[in-house]
Amino acid sequence: MSTGASTPCTRVAVLGSTGSVGRQALDVIRQLPERFQVVALAAGRNTEALAGQVAEFRPAYVSSEAESTDLRDAARAVGARFVGMDDMATAEDVDILLVGTAGSAGLTPTLKALELGRPVAIANKEVLVMAGHLVRRAMLSGGGELRPVDSEHSAIWQCLWGEERHPIRRILLTASGGAFRDFDESRLARVTAEQALNHPTWKMGAKITVDSASLMNKGMETIEAMWLFGVPMEKVEVVLHRESIVHSLVEFSDGSVKAQLGVPDMRLPIQCALAYPDRMPTPPAPALDLATIGTLTFGKPDMQRFPCLRLAMDAGRQGGTYPAAMAAADEIAVGRFLQGEIGFLDIPVIVESVLEHHRSVADPDLEAVLEADAAARTAARLVQRVAQPANGANR
Amino acid sequence: MSTGASTPCTRVAVLGSTGSVGRQALDVIRQLPERFQVVALAAGRNTEALAGQVAEFRPAYVSSEAESTDLRDAARAVGARFVGMDDMATAEDVDILLVGTAGSAGLTPTLKALELGRPVAIANKEVLVMAGHLVRRAMLSGGGELRPVDSEHSAIWQCLWGEERHPIRRILLTASGGAFRDFDESRLARVTAEQALNHPTWKMGAKITVDSASLMNKGMETIEAMWLFGVPMEKVEVVLHRESIVHSLVEFSDGSVKAQLGVPDMRLPIQCALAYPDRMPTPPAPALDLATIGTLTFGKPDMQRFPCLRLAMDAGRQGGTYPAAMAAADEIAVGRFLQGEIGFLDIPVIVESVLEHHRSVADPDLEAVLEADAAARTAARLVQRVAQPANGANR
Repeated sequence: MSTGASTPCTRVAVLGSTGSVGRQALDVIRQLPERFQVVALAAGRNTEALAGQVAEFRPAYVSSEAESTDLRDAARAVGARFVGMDDMATAEDVDILLVGTAGSAGLTPTLKALELGRPVAIANKEVLVMAGHLVRRAMLSGGGELRPVDSEHSAIWQCLWGEERHPIRRILLTASGGAFRDFDESRLARVTAEQALNHPTWKMGAKITVDSASLMNKGMETIEAMWLFGVPMEKVEVVLHRESIVHSLVEFSDGSVKAQLGVPDMRLPIQCALAYPDRMPTPPAPALDLATIGTLTFGKPDMQRFPCLRLAMDAGRQGGTYPAAMAAADEIAVGRFLQGEIGFLDIPVIVESVLEHHRSVADPDLEAVLEADAAARTAARLVQRVAQPANGANR
Repeated sequence: MSTGASTPCTRVAVLGSTGSVGRQALDVIRQLPERFQVVALAAGRNTEALAGQVAEFRPAYVSSEAESTDLRDAARAVGARFVGMDDMATAEDVDILLVGTAGSAGLTPTLKALELGRPVAIANKEVLVMAGHLVRRAMLSGGGELRPVDSEHSAIWQCLWGEERHPIRRILLTASGGAFRDFDESRLARVTAEQALNHPTWKMGAKITVDSASLMNKGMETIEAMWLFGVPMEKVEVVLHRESIVHSLVEFSDGSVKAQLGVPDMRLPIQCALAYPDRMPTPPAPALDLATIGTLTFGKPDMQRFPCLRLAMDAGRQGGTYPAAMAAADEIAVGRFLQGEIGFLDIPVIVESVLEHHRSVADPDLEAVLEADAAARTAARLVQRVAQPANGANR
């Protein structure tokens, strides 16, 4: 048994604490006060929510992109110091960094924690997509540990426990298929931002929900899987699985396949990442009832209808700064789509156009990655839309 | 990587070498001649097949229930000695015992090997059902290791790799449902031995195929799971899963569920058990293609229509000599069914009747187990059939 009262309390720094993953992480920690302690909270511009979290969790460190009187008062009341996220990553009284920030903000704290040999629970896609090679290198050189928080990668990670010596034959990443999985191309051309934000299973932010609908999110996850588990893209496959019950699978050299299953609830992978190598004695989410679920379906993704998946996997295969450019171009394209400026099917057109003109740098350092990111953003803003949002006929 | 040329050759004793599991084990070994070597072959009465195996695998030891000139000649030609199965279990040049015998014949070799601290790859149901407590005790005291060969238990075992410290919340044993899973009670009452032997997925012997159709086989597997994994019956559940792709699942304390999947092929679990803690670099069976399979279904077993499942789980819960008596009564009842003497639904009636009158011994030694076995056999032969094989109306 691994959950006795003698287990020391794990001191957690939560980066992105007011986001979806951050709030769910705090929910997990709230349920297990003897096992986890929040020592640092970092958020973006939602100072009101952050002030509330500071008052509740009484961290030693606070970080915020914006200022407010409430936040300052809350921090003063509990004796919390304002520091940068990098300082949180390296503070002596932090045991694990949970990176739930969006975009590239989580990158340097991640690298710094890994270089210090610390575990990093990572929910941030961009960090691994843009700079997976740097993250992996920091992990291997510093002796740190990446613990995935994404449901899919957590599933793969859990399937690999006890299998560290065994060659991976295939990683089977499951995909719900997003909000438009049953739409044909002409319908896809006409979808609105509002429709895209109506994801069937997971409740998430706007950007990631659009990425889910375009399968760009799944494409980025294939790149994350490469870096998290040290496999080439050739070993990563995407399997459509609408029910989001089988969170992913691993096939080993002998053909044996292992899967991790559960009701779709981020709190389980978050708890796994924080508690590793333990499993907590209580489930943070409802139990899985397979007999009641009844049916699980699997299929092949349609790379034709969802070109973002192919674009991302190609970028992952090509390496260099392609993945960073792709992620940046996608972020701009999704922003333009959410503004109603372009159609849904223009997202892959913009990404592909940016990638076609991108001049990749081999084995890029952080500076080169950020340059590629900036250049791709500029390029993506300049790409003229090729379809009208309300009419995909000219595609 | 665990499969380098430096891995020493594992010397295997195959008990029950001419049976279904034994032949498939030899098939696995035949494909991996640098990794496995057959040093002992034991079979029942099929001396012709055994003679052929002796000539091919050139073991040091042979054991047979019957004699034949061919077998003697084959053994002499390769310099093999005739010994008992117990001697095989304890021979110095045996690294692992594969117990693929049917009935209680595998029990003492299993106990002897475990007491010597050896691994035993176990495919024999009766050994664990009759005397699981003795087997577990021998394993714990001798430091031996039980490696399941059954698809379901191998799945559970594989799901537990790396999870040794983590409490099991539930074991979910999958069941294809057998040949009659869609029959109603009146149809079940009329089924013939011939129909019962037509199992949808696995090709097995007559006894186990009937046990599959009655779900007695699954019931026995729940008892095996108790002893293999050290859990009470309360933690074992049976889930109907027609496709036999998910071989079983484990739910951990935190609600995370792991499953092992594969095409139904005994060679994979056999290879896993022989190669542990390695996985071989080649699959012994075709790869799983989930997208082509498309749909996996799950449901609750109907304990009303298939009372053998309930009888077995109850016997497992009660312990003592109940499981031994149940297995013995079932063997006789199935034999009577295969002879056309009783109807299919008489099997649970006979088993239940024997168990009702059984006087269980707590924590029985081997002698008490064998006494219970013998008494239950006698009792099961004496139970009058309560239904006509061709007409279930009087049930």
